[in-house]
Amino acid sequence: MRDNFPRLGERVMRRLDQLAVDTDEPGKITRLFLSPSHKLAMARVRGFMEAAGLAVEEDDIGNVVGRVESAVPDAPVFILGSHIDSVRDAGRYDGGFGVLSAIEVVEELRRRGEALPFSIEVLAFGDEEGVRFPATLSGSRALAGTFDFESLGAKDENGVSLAEALRDFGCDIDGIGEIARDPRRICGYLESHIEQGPVLEAENLALGVVTAIAGMCRFNVTVEGEAGHAGTVPMQRRKDPLAGSAAMILAVEDVARRTPQVVATVGVIESSPGAINVIPAKVRFSVDLRAPTDQVREQAKSKVEGRLREIAKERELTISFTPLDEAKATPCDPGLMRELSDALARQGHRVFTLPSGAGHDAMAMARLCPVAMLFIRCKGGVSHNPAEAITVEDAQAAIEVMLDFLLHFRPLEHQKLENSRALPESHGSRP
Amino acid sequence: MRDNFPRLGERVMRRLDQLAVDTDEPGKITRLFLSPSHKLAMARVRGFMEAAGLAVEEDDIGNVVGRVESAVPDAPVFILGSHIDSVRDAGRYDGGFGVLSAIEVVEELRRRGEALPFSIEVLAFGDEEGVRFPATLSGSRALAGTFDFESLGAKDENGVSLAEALRDFGCDIDGIGEIARDPRRICGYLESHIEQGPVLEAENLALGVVTAIAGMCRFNVTVEGEAGHAGTVPMQRRKDPLAGSAAMILAVEDVARRTPQVVATVGVIESSPGAINVIPAKVRFSVDLRAPTDQVREQAKSKVEGRLREIAKERELTISFTPLDEAKATPCDPGLMRELSDALARQGHRVFTLPSGAGHDAMAMARLCPVAMLFIRCKGGVSHNPAEAITVEDAQAAIEVMLDFLLHFRPLEHQKLENSRALPESHGSRP
Repeated sequence: MRDNFPRLGERVMRRLDQLAVDTDEPGKITRLFLSPSHKLAMARVRGFMEAAGLAVEEDDIGNVVGRVESAVPDAPVFILGSHIDSVRDAGRYDGGFGVLSAIEVVEELRRRGEALPFSIEVLAFGDEEGVRFPATLSGSRALAGTFDFESLGAKDENGVSLAEALRDFGCDIDGIGEIARDPRRICGYLESHIEQGPVLEAENLALGVVTAIAGMCRFNVTVEGEAGHAGTVPMQRRKDPLAGSAAMILAVEDVARRTPQVVATVGVIESSPGAINVIPAKVRFSVDLRAPTDQVREQAKSKVEGRLREIAKERELTISFTPLDEAKATPCDPGLMRELSDALARQGHRVFTLPSGAGHDAMAMARLCPVAMLFIRCKGGVSHNPAEAITVEDAQAAIEVMLDFLLHFRPLEHQKLENSRALPESHGSRP
Repeated sequence: MRDNFPRLGERVMRRLDQLAVDTDEPGKITRLFLSPSHKLAMARVRGFMEAAGLAVEEDDIGNVVGRVESAVPDAPVFILGSHIDSVRDAGRYDGGFGVLSAIEVVEELRRRGEALPFSIEVLAFGDEEGVRFPATLSGSRALAGTFDFESLGAKDENGVSLAEALRDFGCDIDGIGEIARDPRRICGYLESHIEQGPVLEAENLALGVVTAIAGMCRFNVTVEGEAGHAGTVPMQRRKDPLAGSAAMILAVEDVARRTPQVVATVGVIESSPGAINVIPAKVRFSVDLRAPTDQVREQAKSKVEGRLREIAKERELTISFTPLDEAKATPCDPGLMRELSDALARQGHRVFTLPSGAGHDAMAMARLCPVAMLFIRCKGGVSHNPAEAITVEDAQAAIEVMLDFLLHFRPLEHQKLENSRALPESHGSRP
């Protein structure tokens, strides 16, 4: 495929620039779920899909679905895709690259007249970032049959419920249940996405194979001591919850540093009363801890809690933990990872695997079918920011690897293998 | 004086309760400089002073001055006193105890018919806490001849200048310069005050002799690193300014712990952007560092700065320091300290000395004359709080020690000694 270089990469970059025009906030890229700019972006993506020869429909959760049928009767379906919603003041590659690169792949297959033994669907999901409503992955969950119908009552900051927003968008909420795919008909899901981290850049690699989407737990830690006059309480008599919290923050960092692939972050800290001349009475800080397997995450969390309790005890402080959020890890499918690695090797890349610390639609899709993710290097590891950047060469390389992967993928054996063990637990739970 | 026990203590406690009624905020004790409740408190103190046989006047900076003349012609003046303004939602002993205990002492001297070789003035200063205006110690500075006339332009939160507030209060600002005492006529200043710290309580002592009013420096530390996604940046690649700040806060604590009589406090901390899933870009925290001598304070400050720069360098963070405030230490007069210690010993107390971490009118008075301070134990070290508490027995003990001190004090030699070396530098600086 080197002869194409970098035709497909150039077009996907141009289309990503065009998609960036669809925004709720002029001068920025802000494309929230079910907003006017989401509607515009859907129409734009529909145009790209139709130009690539895909049959397009928009479903009742705001996904754009492009489909190309296999010539093989009753062929299973392989799904490619990502999302087209964004955070506020976003970059142009997060999500969009996965959707538009998939369209390039399909168009190139058609141009070459390749007949594959499976149909392909390209999905442009509308709700991955979860910015507008206190809910997320609505589009991919609807496909996986795990859509949470209670989330229809969730409201945005203007008091508009998800149900109302869907109706105003032209969606029929009674149709959401019908979006769920039959897992027996879906042979796999591949999502390409910017890494959103600095690892590939540091490794001097364009691409990487994702091993798992990290599980995550978030909790607040509240440390209470004894307030006092900054000038009159001798050091030996202090029960300073901020000094204690400082020791705890270092312990959080230390546990994560010592545990491979675990990351832990304290992003928020508040001291009260928060006066320059008062020893604080109380400090609250957040912990966000992620690991590619549930066992590692749970062990690290329990180690962190133990270390923090020890520090509190030594310093005669009281400590309490408030759980905020917990998500299990999503391992990628070993078979698909292997095949994606083979495609990378065939295309002349060093095969490099890494976990994803950020969440993706692939988490929801893993309840439906085997999933794989291809990470593409982004400049400085920056994402969720206008400075987000990738190169045309890396974009081209990603498309070539996806093409190679699909050309070698053998759906029937693989599907049989997976369906024997991977019927999604919650498939029957939707109304 | 044991035969009085605890008559004087009981009366001072009763009067402190009465004074607590004069407040700007019903249900709390809030008595700001030049407020209506300050006026009421001045009238109340005038009444107590007149009952004690003092000749009373109110000066042009809002001080109440009670005076009892020595029978000795041209006798010098010894000043007793403290302040009657308060912080918002204050306790009833901070400041008030020093004023009302001094009145008890004078009344008891009169009751006993003691003729002293010096006159006594009791001062009820009006502006020690510095809450209303960005200025402080106005009353004691006026006496010392170090009043800052530029502070007349300082405004309170309602935009009222100090000059306007003084005029509305009935003060003549042209008279402020006249308040300054002739240092050759003042033989000493003694202030009794609650400790505002837990040291005397921990030592199981009612009273202590203050060695110095600590000097203080305050600065902000700004630490900058690299923001990033909490899930995607491996621990080894982070430049996390909050983890760095945690190490720095422990270093601040460590330097203070290792340096006798130094205290250092981080009271304020802010992390930005301050999101649970974002490695911070920037952290700002405050440092308040105090020591009883300037040399110790400067050494400790420089050690803290050095340690913080080292940590920043190790962690590849940038650090900057913003100075906020700096005040030199005020050593108490060694001669007066010795005489106060002798009085304590004669009254059966273990002689215990300690520095004052908080500021006091004695700091300003030290520019005028030799100063001493007597600390009285307060419950739990709590001050600036309605829970502030002292016992009637400790109040009685303090009054007895002050009486004993005055009865043994020999002004002439002492004054001669001090005046030979202690003419205040800035005495000539007022307009």
